[in-house]
Amino acid sequence: MVKKRIVIALGGNALQENGEATAEAQKKIAEKVGAVIAELANNYEVVVAHGNGPQVGNILIHEESAASEKAPAMPLETAVAMSQGQIGYWLTQAIHNAFAKSGQIKKIATVISQVVVDREDPAFKNPTKPIGQFYDAKTAKELAKKNGWVVKEDAGRGWRRVVASPKPIDIVEKKTIVELLNDNVIVIAAGGGGIPVTRTKILKRLKGIDAVIDKDYAAEKLAELVKADVFISVTAVPNVYLNYNTKDQTALSKISAKEIDQLKKYGYFKAGSMLPKVEAASRFAKKGGTGIITDVNHLKDALKGKAGTIITK
Amino acid sequence: MVKKRIVIALGGNALQENGEATAEAQKKIAEKVGAVIAELANNYEVVVAHGNGPQVGNILIHEESAASEKAPAMPLETAVAMSQGQIGYWLTQAIHNAFAKSGQIKKIATVISQVVVDREDPAFKNPTKPIGQFYDAKTAKELAKKNGWVVKEDAGRGWRRVVASPKPIDIVEKKTIVELLNDNVIVIAAGGGGIPVTRTKILKRLKGIDAVIDKDYAAEKLAELVKADVFISVTAVPNVYLNYNTKDQTALSKISAKEIDQLKKYGYFKAGSMLPKVEAASRFAKKGGTGIITDVNHLKDALKGKAGTIITK
Repeated sequence: MVKKRIVIALGGNALQENGEATAEAQKKIAEKVGAVIAELANNYEVVVAHGNGPQVGNILIHEESAASEKAPAMPLETAVAMSQGQIGYWLTQAIHNAFAKSGQIKKIATVISQVVVDREDPAFKNPTKPIGQFYDAKTAKELAKKNGWVVKEDAGRGWRRVVASPKPIDIVEKKTIVELLNDNVIVIAAGGGGIPVTRTKILKRLKGIDAVIDKDYAAEKLAELVKADVFISVTAVPNVYLNYNTKDQTALSKISAKEIDQLKKYGYFKAGSMLPKVEAASRFAKKGGTGIITDVNHLKDALKGKAGTIITK
Repeated sequence: MVKKRIVIALGGNALQENGEATAEAQKKIAEKVGAVIAELANNYEVVVAHGNGPQVGNILIHEESAASEKAPAMPLETAVAMSQGQIGYWLTQAIHNAFAKSGQIKKIATVISQVVVDREDPAFKNPTKPIGQFYDAKTAKELAKKNGWVVKEDAGRGWRRVVASPKPIDIVEKKTIVELLNDNVIVIAAGGGGIPVTRTKILKRLKGIDAVIDKDYAAEKLAELVKADVFISVTAVPNVYLNYNTKDQTALSKISAKEIDQLKKYGYFKAGSMLPKVEAASRFAKKGGTGIITDVNHLKDALKGKAGTIITK
């Protein structure tokens, strides 16, 4: 039987229940997620692309607030690589242990992933994504001058660095990831939206750049590049809803990408919330695949067409 | 032509010239190392197993000294995973860019690697490896009590945590690494000696454990497991020497593992310096492969039998 290939975008928040950020607490949740992924991997070729918001946030806070000349802070792009190692390790071990329960040993690999962005992406002209710790105005402005940062005041809570959130245009490790899937390996890749890199046009030379790539956009790009059949954005709720948490709340089940476009025009999906997931899933549907948005508990049923919001062309 | 398979153990110190620890400085050196690895990869199947001493040291210093309830410090085992992401990213990009110079695009992958150790390893009864930051006696003892650490005074410089340095007995990702080599991918694996994990006997359940696995031992184990032809420990000098830096200095060129054993008995190799490299290379030779110890500049010639210390059965 030829297995269908699926790419699962998993939120970085998904590993922190009630904001508990110790390794122990996050590993415990990873074990739950790992069990679900292991079950899916019996029937599908699986790539997991996880987020890293809270994790890379804490890495940056530690790196920046404890930096010294001897132990300088790592820049954001390298911090993303560190978070890929961190979360990838937890997930790899969790999936391994889920299989171990039934006496199975499977090949599972976390691949450190670089995601190419365009230096001319308009996002670089207007950085909006706050990262790292809060500073007072004076310190923030000094750091901005020293490090070439853009800093902004954040809703009265202090000053923070803001970075661009450019669109992913390619994934450097795509061919390796395909080889791994063909070799029956469960893959964890494009963590945290990937390490943002620019690429020169002729020689294809890579260079890291401080930015935050949306995890759903990067995972969707990966789904395209590895020719996945299904792209799934995992969120906290079973479906996408219209008028969420009001008396007119309507769950979307099966819907076309065109209808999604219409609803988007009517302003139904919010930028900080469902919009990137809906955009990623419907982009994938337009390319001919199936885009799904659901929560961990409905993943399996959604893949059978029985739950979740399922977007097709 | 069937390419020979080589595993290169690369010191974590190798990326820090004059102790310069910024990402920028380390990436610059990685580019030099990457150029050498790219050249080798034209003629060999290559796995790079890098060290992480100074890098994981700085990660721990940042994590521990800036820890808070909201942003708790990651434990050593997770910090190793973070350093694998960090250094693996730099090396992956450097090797990519070395190929890019001649218009080639190669598949290169950093695989987050767990290395199995034995909970009954005698090293756990006598932890000796100092890690992380220095503390005053009082703080050190409080942390020891709170976290279950062993702490020791470090030559009058203050107190530090010490951890065990157990022997590697297996590498969880070995089969994936073999698949990648068969698929013509240049692999970076077992970084920093690997993330130390224990494994239950029957169900093979994995669990991270705070320890430091010697990078040369882990790389040699990897070389055995992937059935490499050659294991190379890269160091700062072209050869292993007897009576180094004295008028009786003698470079070892071609030598048998048995002769190495004799010299070891006579006390020629020092524990903090050449001993682990010599032990790893001669262990590999005893298993029927070729063990080499040399510096980056002599790597290519050593592989042709024209430089370095070359150990055979």
